[in-house]
Amino acid sequence: DKAKTEGGLKITSEDDNFSAELGGRIHFDTYFFDKDDGQLQRLLIIDNFEEPVNTTDFRRVRLTMRGKLWEWEYKLERDFASSGTGGLRDVFLGTEIFDGDLRIGNFKPSRSMSQLTSSNQITMMERSFGSSAGIFDNRGRQQGIGWNTHWCCHTFGITLFNLRNPGDPRNEGVGAASRFTWAPINDFDSTVHLGASFSYEDANEDTLPREALIEYAGRRGPEQLVALSPGGVEFFFGEFGDDEFYQGRPGGEVWILGLELAGTYGPFYAQSEYAFGNFSGDIYLSEITFGDFFGGPPSFLCDPITGCFIGDQSVHSWYITGSWAITGQHKPYDEKSGVFRSIKPRPPEGAFEVTARYDTIENKDIPNMKVSNFVFGFNYYFNPKVRLMVNVTLGNDRFIRDQTKQFAVRMQGFW
Amino acid sequence: DKAKTEGGLKITSEDDNFSAELGGRIHFDTYFFDKDDGQLQRLLIIDNFEEPVNTTDFRRVRLTMRGKLWEWEYKLERDFASSGTGGLRDVFLGTEIFDGDLRIGNFKPSRSMSQLTSSNQITMMERSFGSSAGIFDNRGRQQGIGWNTHWCCHTFGITLFNLRNPGDPRNEGVGAASRFTWAPINDFDSTVHLGASFSYEDANEDTLPREALIEYAGRRGPEQLVALSPGGVEFFFGEFGDDEFYQGRPGGEVWILGLELAGTYGPFYAQSEYAFGNFSGDIYLSEITFGDFFGGPPSFLCDPITGCFIGDQSVHSWYITGSWAITGQHKPYDEKSGVFRSIKPRPPEGAFEVTARYDTIENKDIPNMKVSNFVFGFNYYFNPKVRLMVNVTLGNDRFIRDQTKQFAVRMQGFW
Amino acid sequence: DKAKTEGGLKITSEDDNFSAELGGRIHFDTYFFDKDDGQLQRLLIIDNFEEPVNTTDFRRVRLTMRGKLWEWEYKLERDFASSGTGGLRDVFLGTEIFDGDLRIGNFKPSRSMSQLTSSNQITMMERSFGSSAGIFDNRGRQQGIGWNTHWCCHTFGITLFNLRNPGDPRNEGVGAASRFTWAPINDFDSTVHLGASFSYEDANEDTLPREALIEYAGRRGPEQLVALSPGGVEFFFGEFGDDEFYQGRPGGEVWILGLELAGTYGPFYAQSEYAFGNFSGDIYLSEITFGDFFGGPPSFLCDPITGCFIGDQSVHSWYITGSWAITGQHKPYDEKSGVFRSIKPRPPEGAFEVTARYDTIENKDIPNMKVSNFVFGFNYYFNPKVRLMVNVTLGNDRFIRDQTKQFAVRMQGFW
Repeated sequence: DKAKTEGGLKITSEDDNFSAELGGRIHFDTYFFDKDDGQLQRLLIIDNFEEPVNTTDFRRVRLTMRGKLWEWEYKLERDFASSGTGGLRDVFLGTEIFDGDLRIGNFKPSRSMSQLTSSNQITMMERSFGSSAGIFDNRGRQQGIGWNTHWCCHTFGITLFNLRNPGDPRNEGVGAASRFTWAPINDFDSTVHLGASFSYEDANEDTLPREALIEYAGRRGPEQLVALSPGGVEFFFGEFGDDEFYQGRPGGEVWILGLELAGTYGPFYAQSEYAFGNFSGDIYLSEITFGDFFGGPPSFLCDPITGCFIGDQSVHSWYITGSWAITGQHKPYDEKSGVFRSIKPRPPEGAFEVTARYDTIENKDIPNMKVSNFVFGFNYYFNPKVRLMVNVTLGNDRFIRDQTKQFAVRMQGFW
Repeated sequence: DKAKTEGGLKITSEDDNFSAELGGRIHFDTYFFDKDDGQLQRLLIIDNFEEPVNTTDFRRVRLTMRGKLWEWEYKLERDFASSGTGGLRDVFLGTEIFDGDLRIGNFKPSRSMSQLTSSNQITMMERSFGSSAGIFDNRGRQQGIGWNTHWCCHTFGITLFNLRNPGDPRNEGVGAASRFTWAPINDFDSTVHLGASFSYEDANEDTLPREALIEYAGRRGPEQLVALSPGGVEFFFGEFGDDEFYQGRPGGEVWILGLELAGTYGPFYAQSEYAFGNFSGDIYLSEITFGDFFGGPPSFLCDPITGCFIGDQSVHSWYITGSWAITGQHKPYDEKSGVFRSIKPRPPEGAFEVTARYDTIENKDIPNMKVSNFVFGFNYYFNPKVRLMVNVTLGNDRFIRDQTKQFAVRMQGFW
Repeated sequence: DKAKTEGGLKITSEDDNFSAELGGRIHFDTYFFDKDDGQLQRLLIIDNFEEPVNTTDFRRVRLTMRGKLWEWEYKLERDFASSGTGGLRDVFLGTEIFDGDLRIGNFKPSRSMSQLTSSNQITMMERSFGSSAGIFDNRGRQQGIGWNTHWCCHTFGITLFNLRNPGDPRNEGVGAASRFTWAPINDFDSTVHLGASFSYEDANEDTLPREALIEYAGRRGPEQLVALSPGGVEFFFGEFGDDEFYQGRPGGEVWILGLELAGTYGPFYAQSEYAFGNFSGDIYLSEITFGDFFGGPPSFLCDPITGCFIGDQSVHSWYITGSWAITGQHKPYDEKSGVFRSIKPRPPEGAFEVTARYDTIENKDIPNMKVSNFVFGFNYYFNPKVRLMVNVTLGNDRFIRDQTKQFAVRMQGFW
């Protein structure tokens, strides 16, 4: 059979019934923080608040095996920068059915253009707040069944899933997500992309709380909880009137609608997403518990007995990002999945692009609960598989009045 | 050198001194339970009893590398559906000696036909109670040295081992197991298999307690402890007369004799094993501790001071299982290891088989301590490496009077 | 492209832009201890002291993927005998720059000849006290950036690093190490090697304490803490005058100078290293805490209020080791990294070598704080990739007056 390498191992059988390949990726980061006074307030309020630490960190260390078994395909991906079963990434069996790809296992639900872009291909070091780096916190991949198709200039996908990452406790929550995209223009040097997605998640027995949790000053920086929907009843604690309690109606729902607009023109690229939705609440927290959860005192009146009430929370998030490849490369559009890939230099030449993003998220039902950041930086591509990323992140947490900044560098290789 | 794929990666050297291959498997399960009132009783008694949860679950996610180094071979297998060093599966070095295979490392001891059948080849989703799914709970693989051979219609194996999985604490327990099989008939479309095995395990310093622990309503369902032999002294607690205590003579022995009868005829297959043996006890538990361990009140008289005495426990377990390949395939017999493999369709055709099993285990020295289940279902083979399994399990725990049922589905691929 | 196996998987592209290979290693150990009375003393003093256990143990179970991406290379190695992110070993991206190899990620700093020798190639089962098996305890690999070069008969390397293994907490400690070697003689059957290295480590926020921790009676045997430099302030506890406290100036420095002399002549090999340096202290411990840390009562006078003071500690360590290949093979010298490799038999013949080492380490600032051992044994090479190691270790802890002995066997394969 035929052996092939472009950095990984690949063998394809003569009769095309089989193939197998082993690839991987290393993302190695360094973070420096410029801390702000807002953190002092957090330090005083949150018991186990961790100050950001200037450090090096493996962001991703993955091996990925994939292959073909007659009409079926498999993918098995493990991230060694995570511990235990939580390190499973794409793990699924799939086949073609009704002109589309069926997948069974653990994978990304059909929602959020930013989320669906591979971590090897993203423009900034971290994804936007409208992805698992925010509104879908800890829910970037779920276990379930999905179907994706594409035709002409369209893609369509739908996913039914258990509210569970492989590292999470077993639970009975369920969800569904769907996404549709249209590229009215898509030629050699320019693309216009439109998209919409909808996600619905319904907690149940043992489901973890769904949170919108934002690291607004970059990875490993301070976090702000922006919205919260309770999970199983077992996560509540305390009683009304206690110093610390968290009570309410378990099993809340979260729905998110996302809209996408993006395009390229020669070496220029711009992408924007708007996500809004609802985190159902009906929860009661003591003032102390509110502080522990949100890192600051309540920005509204709380009842002395029943505490701070949080009902349904309307959450809005949007970003706009762009890049300019100074060395002239064009960002290709992946017509099968409806996302953009990163530029590719032609070895032995490299490529250089400057990048920027403004990103914001707001909970309209908790006064002042708004977080945003501005990120700018550049990417240097040594070759199509190795790049250096530099990002400066100017964070802004309006709720806690913190403006921590981060300088971050990533060395990235994949194969 | 020669590259080859049948879904995995394989390279063989021209001079035949070397070979290497990388394979893997994904078993992805979904479970639904029909809970029974017996569990209420358990809930009231056991502090941290977990109710069964309807969920999806990765049963196995493995990468397996094996190869040849001149006259030696290696195998290294890691299950990413388990955490830490407990995720090691077959990890050994081996060579041929005296016309047999010598293995040094971690692997399955020579006992229990059900256990020795690969998880890719088993007929039902879970193995019988006479395997590591019951009487050899948590002892499916052990660290040690083993030798296996086969001639004509016979196989013989012997294993000496430390009572340790790689994920267990270091301990000084030791064991031995041996198995002999005979296939008096083994031709093109019919096989008759007879076998016997004997296992002896002797606990010592730091050895974990050996248990026969049964998930009688399928994986992730309620568990019943059927028999118990103490391990190291450090697992005892409390004092006679306390509310909770567990005392006795540490370092018990467990021996199990297993008998096997199995056969195929065209598309029909039947297999039965009978295992009986002794879990040495000499332990004293308070009534509360008995309830915590066994999930129900003692079914015999306990002393107010010295508690419930459990001496040597005679344990009997047997099952009978069968399948009918409606699409006509014959289950092949592996003459080298003395087990049956699953049927293989010829692509692009699939295969369909219906399956059933009755399985039971009893501790004759604790009144009413008997657990059994009936499982029926079907397997659909998309191709020789991808199958869908459906199992309905009707559990019956006579001790606690629980009859939880499970509906389970598995998508399985290996390469 | 070209596929190749020498036990692993390797594919190289025709144009030489790419290559990829997957290898691994299994080291499977068995340990028997002859315990000594000195441990009784330790048992009485240390709360959670673990007596050595006769057992089997996977010392290393690794998969290693490496390859070439145009002018860059990657290496990704995971040890499955360790849990979580602490199981990452060599994980880096590298390229050639200024006639040397640049590495970014996690790898061994340029220090300690014993440490820099691959675990597949070491002469005894464990490395000397002057490596991560002692003075650089838990610091065998660090995250950072390094550059290595070699010319004529010289090697030179320099590393800048964060004081962090991937499994350690994020922290702001930093370090640097450099090593220079010279081989004035290096011909067909004889080599003389000289070397020197210097390492400097500066603890800071959240840095773990740096320890020289010695398993003087072999792996999994009793440990003796020989020297200690505090890390971040968060590791201190208690107050002056308490029964248990540990206070002082956080963020100590450790510097180590190492000198190397080694050589081969035909089947004979000898190697010696002398390491000395300083662990900065300025710490105060209560007598009870001193006992908990060091396993015995203080060997000097302690103040009733401020406890036992430990200032700067001058630490000296040296070993001499040798081997004789009775079957005549010569140990090759790796000119690129300035270390010796193990002998290689020519299959189908094996090879046999006898080995010995005397190893010692002393903290000159704590009276009697000296630990040493004598190890002798043999290695049988079935072939160049599979060997059996047998080591007898005669341990001697002068501080606690313990002379535990160990008999150890390793089956080792790599590919």
